[in-house]
Amino acid sequence: MKKLVESVPNISEGRDKDVIEEIVNEFKKFKNIKILEVSSDESHNRTVVTIVGNVDDVVEGLFYFTKKAVELIDLNKHKGEHPRIGAVDVIPLIPISGITKNELNNYVKLLGERIWNELNVPVYFYADSAANEERRKLPNIRKGEFEGLVEKMKEPNWHPDIGNPIPHSTAGATVIGVREFLIAYNINLATPDVSIAEKIAKSIRESSGGLMYLQARGFYLEDKNCAQVSMNILNFKKLPLYRVYEIVKMEAEKYGTYIKESELVGLIPLKAVLDSFSFYIKLPELNLDKVIEYKIWGEE
Amino acid sequence: MKKLVESVPNISEGRDKDVIEEIVNEFKKFKNIKILEVSSDESHNRTVVTIVGNVDDVVEGLFYFTKKAVELIDLNKHKGEHPRIGAVDVIPLIPISGITKNELNNYVKLLGERIWNELNVPVYFYADSAANEERRKLPNIRKGEFEGLVEKMKEPNWHPDIGNPIPHSTAGATVIGVREFLIAYNINLATPDVSIAEKIAKSIRESSGGLMYLQARGFYLEDKNCAQVSMNILNFKKLPLYRVYEIVKMEAEKYGTYIKESELVGLIPLKAVLDSFSFYIKLPELNLDKVIEYKIWGEE
Repeated sequence: MKKLVESVPNISEGRDKDVIEEIVNEFKKFKNIKILEVSSDESHNRTVVTIVGNVDDVVEGLFYFTKKAVELIDLNKHKGEHPRIGAVDVIPLIPISGITKNELNNYVKLLGERIWNELNVPVYFYADSAANEERRKLPNIRKGEFEGLVEKMKEPNWHPDIGNPIPHSTAGATVIGVREFLIAYNINLATPDVSIAEKIAKSIRESSGGLMYLQARGFYLEDKNCAQVSMNILNFKKLPLYRVYEIVKMEAEKYGTYIKESELVGLIPLKAVLDSFSFYIKLPELNLDKVIEYKIWGEE
Repeated sequence: MKKLVESVPNISEGRDKDVIEEIVNEFKKFKNIKILEVSSDESHNRTVVTIVGNVDDVVEGLFYFTKKAVELIDLNKHKGEHPRIGAVDVIPLIPISGITKNELNNYVKLLGERIWNELNVPVYFYADSAANEERRKLPNIRKGEFEGLVEKMKEPNWHPDIGNPIPHSTAGATVIGVREFLIAYNINLATPDVSIAEKIAKSIRESSGGLMYLQARGFYLEDKNCAQVSMNILNFKKLPLYRVYEIVKMEAEKYGTYIKESELVGLIPLKAVLDSFSFYIKLPELNLDKVIEYKIWGEE
């Protein structure tokens, strides 16, 4: 069974195309890594790379990607709107299929140790790899940024998880962690009344006391002249797509409207598709390897 | 994009395990062919092999599989309950993803020509590769069997599609054709009354004037003490799974019962899953390459 993972490393360089290319090219040396997107933002002065592949290759590729970024990026000269503490600021790792979060977490630890041992960059673990609640959230770790890192690291509760409490002189520190795949999912309503989308969003999102793992906002889409409930599902295993759809459907009826269509922004893991498919046609025992394509390509 | 196809060749040997193994082993020489099942029946004296893989490898593998079967099987000595006209009796080819039926049909023609040119076995095309309506159905071609083939082939309307009208002296003729993937799908009802399952089956199947591409029968399942509508969906592109589910659901309500659960027998192509998934959550633009696993493994 292939162990498929995604990673979305962020580097603190969004302007110098040659530097960005040289760093991203490290991934191209791996046959089993696929680069899905490279997105640079000049005002943030930051580039976000999305890759997918077999876990061994992805972790190996991330090390060489980090090595090159540490060589080429000097945070003492870096200016940008987005907060950052490292040349490679954050490396999220996401299990897709054939691997659990716990198993992936072991890879995260090895990657962190290698980055410290070979590159002298201290490492923090965040998200589901965090050692305590305070470190789960990236903004807590990043607070004070690169410029405040020498002082911050001296505080005992901000010692890094791996390495001595001394930032790398040009590359700062790197934050690594396992998190769940995020599904960006929008539902368009059969009404142009944005207040309905806003009321639905408010009643279902976690921050307003609704469903855990759900972020939601209401928008008006000019090109389609309709209201949209725009959502992020932060954990599709605990909050399956069909439940989100059915709850929005129910709430829409309350306001005398209905769902016109829905849309996925970006990709979706096969497991998320199967969970909803099997809900609707009452297939209790549907596994990934019932799908021909997965059976062929997911096994080695 | 990988061109994924399935094939289910049938050979006229179901008893001699050494012979069967030697023939099936031809597929093991291909890294990109996966053998899903080898099912031998002694009374039929016949073996059905299920393989999946990239179209080029599958077609190449099928040739060497046929070559070996022609070498090792002598139909003059063959006895069994199942009708047959060839050592390799029939080779169905099924498009799974990344390839159309028309494109696959070109491969079928090349395979047929090679079997004639190099092995001297004449070839008939059936199913969606048939030259006329009469040849669409396998029983029409197979009528008279191996023993009657010398005479049958002399009739102008039973000349083979490829090769001279003379059967191979020990291997007869081979029938090849493209067909759609068949989904074996059962729905269990919340009642032990088999007459309800039978009435539903009769009202929805093609042979009784219901839905095209649907075969259906009613059964009683002793282990679950429930009635089952057991179905084959012969073309899931024209008759999607959700439509079958929803119609059985509707009919069950008519008899005061409901669907307890459904089950897939064997595998399902990703496209069939996506078609139903996108129906239920109104996702009009869902393509295979929105699914991460397909995007990674389906593209080369």
